[in-house]
Amino acid sequence: MLPLDVLELAQSELTDWRSGMSVLEVSHRGKDFIACAAAAEASMREVLGIPDNYKVLFLQGGASGQFDAVPMNISSEGDSVDFFNTGQWSKKAIAGSKRQGLAVNVIADEAAGNYTTIPAPGSYTTTPGARYLHYTPNETIGGVEFNYIPESEAPLVADASSTILSRPLDVSRYGVIYAGTQKNMGPSGLVVVIVRDDLLGAARTNTPDVINWTEQAAADSMLNTPPTFGIYMLGLVLDWVKAGGGLEAMGARNKAKAEMLYAAIDNSEFYSNPVAISARSWMNIPFILANPELDKAFLAGAEQAGLTNLAGHRSVGGMRASIYNAMPIQGVQALIDYMTDFAAKNG
Amino acid sequence: MLPLDVLELAQSELTDWRSGMSVLEVSHRGKDFIACAAAAEASMREVLGIPDNYKVLFLQGGASGQFDAVPMNISSEGDSVDFFNTGQWSKKAIAGSKRQGLAVNVIADEAAGNYTTIPAPGSYTTTPGARYLHYTPNETIGGVEFNYIPESEAPLVADASSTILSRPLDVSRYGVIYAGTQKNMGPSGLVVVIVRDDLLGAARTNTPDVINWTEQAAADSMLNTPPTFGIYMLGLVLDWVKAGGGLEAMGARNKAKAEMLYAAIDNSEFYSNPVAISARSWMNIPFILANPELDKAFLAGAEQAGLTNLAGHRSVGGMRASIYNAMPIQGVQALIDYMTDFAAKNG
Repeated sequence: MLPLDVLELAQSELTDWRSGMSVLEVSHRGKDFIACAAAAEASMREVLGIPDNYKVLFLQGGASGQFDAVPMNISSEGDSVDFFNTGQWSKKAIAGSKRQGLAVNVIADEAAGNYTTIPAPGSYTTTPGARYLHYTPNETIGGVEFNYIPESEAPLVADASSTILSRPLDVSRYGVIYAGTQKNMGPSGLVVVIVRDDLLGAARTNTPDVINWTEQAAADSMLNTPPTFGIYMLGLVLDWVKAGGGLEAMGARNKAKAEMLYAAIDNSEFYSNPVAISARSWMNIPFILANPELDKAFLAGAEQAGLTNLAGHRSVGGMRASIYNAMPIQGVQALIDYMTDFAAKNG
Repeated sequence: MLPLDVLELAQSELTDWRSGMSVLEVSHRGKDFIACAAAAEASMREVLGIPDNYKVLFLQGGASGQFDAVPMNISSEGDSVDFFNTGQWSKKAIAGSKRQGLAVNVIADEAAGNYTTIPAPGSYTTTPGARYLHYTPNETIGGVEFNYIPESEAPLVADASSTILSRPLDVSRYGVIYAGTQKNMGPSGLVVVIVRDDLLGAARTNTPDVINWTEQAAADSMLNTPPTFGIYMLGLVLDWVKAGGGLEAMGARNKAKAEMLYAAIDNSEFYSNPVAISARSWMNIPFILANPELDKAFLAGAEQAGLTNLAGHRSVGGMRASIYNAMPIQGVQALIDYMTDFAAKNG
């Protein structure tokens, strides 16, 4: 979901941007697009408070491409690395590091609780000599989210795709943050990589150029044609975040939205959410109906009420409300109203 | 450049596509987007006449990402491969295959003529046991284009980014055709890979999932979130190609456009094009002014006349007119008129 203001601005400019061309047509080497990309980077740095010793890269693809890029850029074959496994996205990141020949230590594994928990602070032991500790701050499918930043001697690496820009973030605690844009930052096709300077320069010789952070940093992310439209849209979204009060305001609003929906679920006997209170996501809220035979009727009625994309991920079933930045409080209230009504009629 | 009809349709639908959502927001797993991607693939197959024993993949990124994907998918480290070197894009593809540990044989090298020629049919000797022969049918910077399809016992692999959809193409002669979309197919961020079935199943174990053709073919290109907006735009562009008479009509028009511009250059003593007649590109036409001191004035006047992106690539200088499918004949005529006028005033 994207803010309507952003969509309408993009629409108004789509055939006539700077110099009278469409942003879909301009050369990425032209002054208009270079200024657009530079402004998007400056906004990203401002909104997230990114320290000067971090590079911000705008690369083709999404987070999945970085599952292999992380090990190729900052480790050598045979190295040992630490992972938290908190769900489907953790598992995909683990598979990427294994594919690139690393010895993966899963130092906290939430599989036993069916991914309804996160490891408690201090409950895990990092591996001496590990090249990095990777974790997934928010898991979209299970709806679990870290409410703290893990401690690690090795550089901390995070796939922040589904939580970035949802609240303030202390970037200085991380070695690498990467995030696909299609949740809180724009359409799919762009991945933002925030990497601390001292981690550059160590890419393996067989790292494809397009995911070689060192090469891309040296080329201002333009070693190859970047996803121009995605970068333009990211700039518009960041302007919208700034105009809305920045990440403090986003965080306050997202917290309020999530608390409303969790309260509606917890106060009902018809709906339930399986996630431990301390691990509950602000972005993705799964819930199940007391009687799963009513799932289809629930979804059909929701769609008629204009409430879309509520089916849970095919791997878990049930329902899932994704309430990213662009979802207004009124949208959450409309969902709660529908849920209350449906429960009254079917409970 | 994109057809104005396509841009206006995309604009009209940008805030309200199917189900009232923006195509920038819909889930790639939803029925609307799945239908959109399936229609784009069907159109691609229809327009190019792609045989049934080829897969059509829609992947994140551009052609540059495939420079490493080609060797990772269809060769093993240490294998021997053949390349034609006809310019900058050939060299980048060669670098990708070398990065992935292959022994690269450049069996035709046009560097000596400063990339103004292509190898004559039959003038080269392929290497026994080579895993593929790779070439770049059109080089955007030098403005050279093959007017024939090379013969090779090994599968023929082509980076067709800057020529695909410009005229009919006999796909059955190829093992793999890949093409970034940002020339003739839409905005940047999407690469189309057309791969013959028998070449699948041989990816190296360290191939990143997102560029593993076998895995992506099995997952209908949705192993990761695809570049949804790019696929939507590709579908619109293909509809426009079909409505305009298909590739026969595109080819006739592109040939006419190129002949007009080459004639204007060749008939002038003020402008010249260095490329051998048989190697001249229909898409990218470089030309130089007799007096390079006038380059800046030429470009400034052109921009005032609404003729943009005429500076030659920074590596070669001079001028370059890129007249892809979306450039109307009137646009080429306007350029010729400006060139004639400028020469009369400054010649």
